[in-house]
Amino acid sequence: MDLALKRNFLIPSNELYGKSSGFYDYGPVGFLLKKKIENAWRDFFVRQEGFHEIETVHIIPEDVLKASGHVSSFADPLVACNTCKNRFRADFLLEEKTGKKYEGLPPNELTELIKENKVQCPRCGGGLGSVGWFNLMFRTNIGSIDGDTAYARPETAQGIFLDFQRIHRNSGSRLPMGIAQVGRSYRNEISPRQGILRLREFTQMEIEYFFDPKDDKMEGFSSIADKPLRLLLKEGEEIIEVSAKDAVKNGLIPNEIMAYFMAKQTVFYEMLGVPFKRMHFKLLPEKEMPHYSKKNFDLCVDTSFGSIETVGNAYRGDFDLSSHGKASGNDLSIVVDGKKIIPHVIEPSMGVDRMLWCILEHCYRPKTKEKEWEWFDFPPIISPYEAAVFPLMKRDGMGEKAKEVARGLRDRYDIFYSESGSIGRRYAKADEIGLFLAITVDYDTLNDGTVTMRERNSAKQIRVPIKDLADKIDKLMKGEIAFADAGVPFKAQPLNPQ
Amino acid sequence: MDLALKRNFLIPSNELYGKSSGFYDYGPVGFLLKKKIENAWRDFFVRQEGFHEIETVHIIPEDVLKASGHVSSFADPLVACNTCKNRFRADFLLEEKTGKKYEGLPPNELTELIKENKVQCPRCGGGLGSVGWFNLMFRTNIGSIDGDTAYARPETAQGIFLDFQRIHRNSGSRLPMGIAQVGRSYRNEISPRQGILRLREFTQMEIEYFFDPKDDKMEGFSSIADKPLRLLLKEGEEIIEVSAKDAVKNGLIPNEIMAYFMAKQTVFYEMLGVPFKRMHFKLLPEKEMPHYSKKNFDLCVDTSFGSIETVGNAYRGDFDLSSHGKASGNDLSIVVDGKKIIPHVIEPSMGVDRMLWCILEHCYRPKTKEKEWEWFDFPPIISPYEAAVFPLMKRDGMGEKAKEVARGLRDRYDIFYSESGSIGRRYAKADEIGLFLAITVDYDTLNDGTVTMRERNSAKQIRVPIKDLADKIDKLMKGEIAFADAGVPFKAQPLNPQ
Repeated sequence: MDLALKRNFLIPSNELYGKSSGFYDYGPVGFLLKKKIENAWRDFFVRQEGFHEIETVHIIPEDVLKASGHVSSFADPLVACNTCKNRFRADFLLEEKTGKKYEGLPPNELTELIKENKVQCPRCGGGLGSVGWFNLMFRTNIGSIDGDTAYARPETAQGIFLDFQRIHRNSGSRLPMGIAQVGRSYRNEISPRQGILRLREFTQMEIEYFFDPKDDKMEGFSSIADKPLRLLLKEGEEIIEVSAKDAVKNGLIPNEIMAYFMAKQTVFYEMLGVPFKRMHFKLLPEKEMPHYSKKNFDLCVDTSFGSIETVGNAYRGDFDLSSHGKASGNDLSIVVDGKKIIPHVIEPSMGVDRMLWCILEHCYRPKTKEKEWEWFDFPPIISPYEAAVFPLMKRDGMGEKAKEVARGLRDRYDIFYSESGSIGRRYAKADEIGLFLAITVDYDTLNDGTVTMRERNSAKQIRVPIKDLADKIDKLMKGEIAFADAGVPFKAQPLNPQ
Repeated sequence: MDLALKRNFLIPSNELYGKSSGFYDYGPVGFLLKKKIENAWRDFFVRQEGFHEIETVHIIPEDVLKASGHVSSFADPLVACNTCKNRFRADFLLEEKTGKKYEGLPPNELTELIKENKVQCPRCGGGLGSVGWFNLMFRTNIGSIDGDTAYARPETAQGIFLDFQRIHRNSGSRLPMGIAQVGRSYRNEISPRQGILRLREFTQMEIEYFFDPKDDKMEGFSSIADKPLRLLLKEGEEIIEVSAKDAVKNGLIPNEIMAYFMAKQTVFYEMLGVPFKRMHFKLLPEKEMPHYSKKNFDLCVDTSFGSIETVGNAYRGDFDLSSHGKASGNDLSIVVDGKKIIPHVIEPSMGVDRMLWCILEHCYRPKTKEKEWEWFDFPPIISPYEAAVFPLMKRDGMGEKAKEVARGLRDRYDIFYSESGSIGRRYAKADEIGLFLAITVDYDTLNDGTVTMRERNSAKQIRVPIKDLADKIDKLMKGEIAFADAGVPFKAQPLNPQ
């Protein structure tokens, strides 16, 4: 977190006014990392699948969220101190006291447990009142102060359900159909904690996959059917490893569709730097499942905060389309082979912020003898900038030349440019923000038009002509050529990072 | 608008529940168009300039918005009907009655004018009360119902001001520095109208350019100094055409920085399909300027709704940094050449939704004898999908082959795929969503591995080998080769669009 704050990844929101808990901004480096994660997701889960992506509004009228169940069910158990009036999550206080988990218990049981365990106010030591539900949505009004009640959306999914009928009709009325959305959602958490893991504003990447429940085969499943999945079927049991195909065959996962997404998620997380053995899918016990779900597999990743859920795979059935159809008085059924059906839905829902945090943790490398600074070993595909460009020194025209090189590359790439401090210190900085490649303009550049290119992980250097740079970067990023083959070896002076 | 609704560009939000005025969703085609506009903007205004982009939170505590002036000044004049209690914008009612403009007048004057002009309630004909200010921000609470007051952000700019100090310090403490943000902002309009031109939720692309007021030269200005700008200096006068350079020299535009952005905006709008003669920059008279601005040039585009503002260029001076410094008790000055200064800010702020609407209007082409359907003539750079892929018919393996071709191209491109209806009807559909290229797999494809590629505007066709497709599309999109040179001429049967 220190490195993330120092190196422009994260910025506590409203820091000048005393930071707001549960809110974080993305600085210039964090923004690029986040954008590259989102684009990688889009390419892998939306574009390659031929799914649709849409963008729906963030402020949603109360009617919609009554029908979706969020007004009545999207709540956390809240308890207030009788003395200082501060409010807390009842299940968290109990967990802190006993070390056990209390998620999903009703308020009356939690009230009893607080008494039994003699839990007191963590702020002032006062007695605690009765536990009640607290709705997690941010409430507002449309039109005027006493206008229509509305809420900041608690998930991007609802916009997809509302637009499903029109998109389906305008797109040839076929099933299956996948509709995706990337965007912010809002949860008015009672006591946010753990950095960017429990935010009041966060970005979701959600897919709603609509299908005929009589046909839950998945096109392309065979291409990924042998991918092993790590499943935790019950808290406290061993994680088992089983192929996607066998997990469906044995009834562990409800159908090919869900298994397909779970296998792709495993591949995706590996691609972005999370090792296979550090993640698993947790089958949610009934009391922990969201109100709309029939079956839920959460992808959990090991972090310094313990195992955290970063993806929810929910089998929403026809819950949402049926609810909105009933509440709005519209028939949302569609005709398949002459029969009216309400499509079923499987929803893989990924949290970008949590994923980004997992990547920061798993790509973090501490100082060693070889590299005397901390750094991030991001895979090239999410390197925040594709490359850094530095003049060895500003003088003798090297500054101008380096700017010219940067400008040329910026037609295609995000380029980090810096000319202050020693070149060694700048290499260290490029490593600290996880840049895969760094390019230096030196005296030789002015004579022969070549530059030094340095690879982050090996710190090896080669000489490359400026005119070949854009193409070499592209091939190196894609792994189409090895670094040593991208240019002529170059032996630099040993560098002093100070 | 009919075509935009029919072809998955726009979807009225919450349509099932009776649409919410002032809210629109982007359907699959509109989303891609919007994303391509945003990416083109990012490349042109952020990446090529070496500016930073960040992402800050949407929900902002009241403290911040008090300091920024939004709590007191971000308001519209509201008047209620004494009989039916409906609320209206006082200046709009007057404008409808008299045809004159009343923006910026204080409530007491508007109340008088309503009496003088005998304006009545447009719903029930009842009398109207006194005009008062109505704050345009969506209000909510953080933490709990009676928690801290907060608002959905009225502009993305405030997040940039709050984070400026940390980013500046972490980035080598240099000026000038540009920080950009793309994202949603929220305005609780009293009576939204005009489709997506006046939305309660909209996307901004904003840049805050921080500079030393003693040094308002702009790097790179010479490259664009001769670009002519169309300026409207006073309502009712003629629009004048003057180069960016001369506009600065004559004192029409305050400095090179603002002129630079205005020239780039003109180029950008032309690149994206708005003709030069259909836009101009309007100098705002003092009473219409936002509370933070010293000088304001709005880029206005001619549309069927009249001339509409799509970009605001504001000279915010040190208003925001000074206000936040004072309100938060932090010193936001920085040191330049040994002296403490508060940087000045020029803000080019672009509305994506309005820009997208202007593009729809200016790229719209009605039916003609040659093309018996309406279509969009989008420049290739914002073609929603880079290409369509169709099998001539589904049978005899053409469906499978076409899917394979689509899959191959989806590694790089957004591909529209359709196999239902006649091929002529599908070409028409591709034109209706403004696709630059359409590719057809036919019987010959199965034998010789070539496909037909059709260009939207000329409806001309060529044959191209599948293996060359990705590369040809890239070159055609960039205008590096002419369509006729991208393959072998192909003479298709005359097509029947039914």
